[in-house]
Amino acid sequence: MTALLTDLYQLTMAAGYWCAGKAAETATFELFVRRLPHNRNFLLAAGLQQAVDYLLHVRFTSEEIDYLRGLPQFRNVDGGFFEALRGFRFTGDLFAVPEGTPLFPGEPILTVRAPLMEAQIPETYLLSTVGFQTLIATKAARMVEAAGGRAVVEFGTRRAHSPEAGVYAARAAYLGGCIGTSNTLAGMRYGIPVFGTAAHSWIQSFPTELEAFERLHQLLGSGTTYLIDTYDTLEGARRAASLGKPFWGVRLDSGNLVELSRAVRVILDEAGCPEAKIMATGDLNEYKILELAAAGAPIDAFGVGTELATSSDAPSHGAVYKMVEHSSGLGRRYTAKFSQDKSTLPGAKQIFRYPGYDVLARTHECFMPGCEALLRPVIIRGELVGRQPDATGARSFARESIARLPKKLRSLFECDPPYRIDLSDELLQLAEEVRGIER
Amino acid sequence: MTALLTDLYQLTMAAGYWCAGKAAETATFELFVRRLPHNRNFLLAAGLQQAVDYLLHVRFTSEEIDYLRGLPQFRNVDGGFFEALRGFRFTGDLFAVPEGTPLFPGEPILTVRAPLMEAQIPETYLLSTVGFQTLIATKAARMVEAAGGRAVVEFGTRRAHSPEAGVYAARAAYLGGCIGTSNTLAGMRYGIPVFGTAAHSWIQSFPTELEAFERLHQLLGSGTTYLIDTYDTLEGARRAASLGKPFWGVRLDSGNLVELSRAVRVILDEAGCPEAKIMATGDLNEYKILELAAAGAPIDAFGVGTELATSSDAPSHGAVYKMVEHSSGLGRRYTAKFSQDKSTLPGAKQIFRYPGYDVLARTHECFMPGCEALLRPVIIRGELVGRQPDATGARSFARESIARLPKKLRSLFECDPPYRIDLSDELLQLAEEVRGIER
Repeated sequence: MTALLTDLYQLTMAAGYWCAGKAAETATFELFVRRLPHNRNFLLAAGLQQAVDYLLHVRFTSEEIDYLRGLPQFRNVDGGFFEALRGFRFTGDLFAVPEGTPLFPGEPILTVRAPLMEAQIPETYLLSTVGFQTLIATKAARMVEAAGGRAVVEFGTRRAHSPEAGVYAARAAYLGGCIGTSNTLAGMRYGIPVFGTAAHSWIQSFPTELEAFERLHQLLGSGTTYLIDTYDTLEGARRAASLGKPFWGVRLDSGNLVELSRAVRVILDEAGCPEAKIMATGDLNEYKILELAAAGAPIDAFGVGTELATSSDAPSHGAVYKMVEHSSGLGRRYTAKFSQDKSTLPGAKQIFRYPGYDVLARTHECFMPGCEALLRPVIIRGELVGRQPDATGARSFARESIARLPKKLRSLFECDPPYRIDLSDELLQLAEEVRGIER
Repeated sequence: MTALLTDLYQLTMAAGYWCAGKAAETATFELFVRRLPHNRNFLLAAGLQQAVDYLLHVRFTSEEIDYLRGLPQFRNVDGGFFEALRGFRFTGDLFAVPEGTPLFPGEPILTVRAPLMEAQIPETYLLSTVGFQTLIATKAARMVEAAGGRAVVEFGTRRAHSPEAGVYAARAAYLGGCIGTSNTLAGMRYGIPVFGTAAHSWIQSFPTELEAFERLHQLLGSGTTYLIDTYDTLEGARRAASLGKPFWGVRLDSGNLVELSRAVRVILDEAGCPEAKIMATGDLNEYKILELAAAGAPIDAFGVGTELATSSDAPSHGAVYKMVEHSSGLGRRYTAKFSQDKSTLPGAKQIFRYPGYDVLARTHECFMPGCEALLRPVIIRGELVGRQPDATGARSFARESIARLPKKLRSLFECDPPYRIDLSDELLQLAEEVRGIER
């Protein structure tokens, strides 16, 4: 994995640290989200696997080093720095919450403790991969909650922010509770169930809808889902049922889904297909799903694309990566920002989760039984420790963790008061001390 | 490039076409955007280079074919299909508008004419790569317009939808008129100017701001940009000026940018640094840039991240890929959809651009002098024809093309009436004929 996939200033700073003899000083950075996006009551942590892959495999190729050498920003940097890049490895520590953990603003999703240069360069990649997957896993959990037990499938790659983003969106959506994806590469790479049958172009490529249905059934047998809205939805439902062979169900992709699903249900039942299911697709989101469910529409599964793969109502959240400790020849310093909008707390932290609330504390603090320390060692001195669960394991963990949250947090709307997060006395004291020094 | 980066239904349809003996029938698909996102008056086409790379290099590996074989959806498919995948190549034609072309709803960004199976499988990848880059290039053009001649630099990878999306966002933003990016890999890969100096963590890692500034200047010399808001912005400006060495300028990342930029300008001027520039960053978008420019804030350059790399006010647009022609043993058919919200026009089309308006017509129609046919052959029978401009060439083309648009279209707000697009008589007649048949 190329270390060039970062902001240039990470590399100019790395060069600066190297030139100033500071590259080996130790720094601790925390990655967290400052504020919850609109209507969210929690975040669902995701993307750790990609963060770990990156830290274990990040390298500079010779070609990349030559490119940097040619940039004006590196004109004054001596050759030793570029030699150092040639052997660049992440030799530090990574602590992280397990994928699928519900989290809250200010709580670290991960903590990096490493030589300054090694901790700085990964900032951009870590923010992007963890930030994006957390965004999508969180959005997926909302859709799954709205669906109230009905299946939700992720279909969004075509509208994702690049094909590669579609692969990560599929993974994150699965972690968030979707039962699978249409993204075939995500299926193969992460062991996610894949779904898909046919589009309108399939129907259009045959002289009649009936022939298109027959041909599809020859291929997919009892797993067939007929897309029935190309010409006339109700007529499509009758044709599907008329084939007289077992099939999975039908898909509605347009029109009034409440009315159409009811009418189609009647057609299927009267035609002797009570087992046939109805899937709905077409610009759905959690609010529309909730409405359909509340209206009692007989829909068994939802396919969601654009709004899920882009988290379209909140396409970003302010994930940041902030230095909280720094050790040099002058000793250890705790760092923080105290500006009005962007204040941060100094010192490496641990999240202690009690039933119903969290305590954010300094890492060395020991808490009473009955709470769980969420941040765990994942990489120590550059080596992976322990095994991370795969996507399916992380998905199960997310389901269980969300089920344990106070029920009101699972609302699709902002709940007041928000989740309780206490700061430990030691953490508050450290913040006061640092604030005093900064002043 | 893996052909598995697609929706599964493209592959089940491919298998179905193969089993039905239809895989070699010719189909024509057009990729276009149905509606302009909020407040946009045009789209800026981008992503063609990635579309071309994909079509020229898309393959199935043995491992991927084995994966497909093991899926329940392919249970009834005979071995010949998987043999066909082993030799799968795109042997068809691609027509496209040059990158950087301003376009309007319904106008094809690209047209694929190929054997049915080869035209179907690329749908997902093409939509995602062209759709996303078009989205971001369009957004960038708005920011550049708002900046009114001041430089705009793209800084958004950390908030992009995956690190890879950040690379494409950087490319598209450059095409849209940004002068460069912080994304170093995009710089190397596409020859885009890269920018970046230091973050708050740089300042925090030194005992004093002054020492951090001195060290940065040792590295970057006259190219140095001092980030001056870590502690006190005005004090930071005084410190930067006090070093008494030429530097590029200062960066403001928080606070009231109008007031601060004015005060900082005075400090720099009075300290004998009238050449030093002021860059502003921090959650900027085109509206904020316009406000700052309107207020006469002495800002020379804007750095934009989140809102650009995610097109946050419109994180998707309804790019679609629709079959418009299909030739089988039964002859050629023109296909379209006539549903209320999602109607399409049948037949392969050409865009003829006159000064101030376009005519959408059938491909064989010849138009008068004074207009330009925008869709041009790029791949013919699987081979690249002609050369595409690089990112810098496409950027220049975009600048010139936007400058030729009616001025009101360059507004940041919806203009009424929108750009004029006429449909040729032949196209209207074909649509009527197809509608008659479908009824």
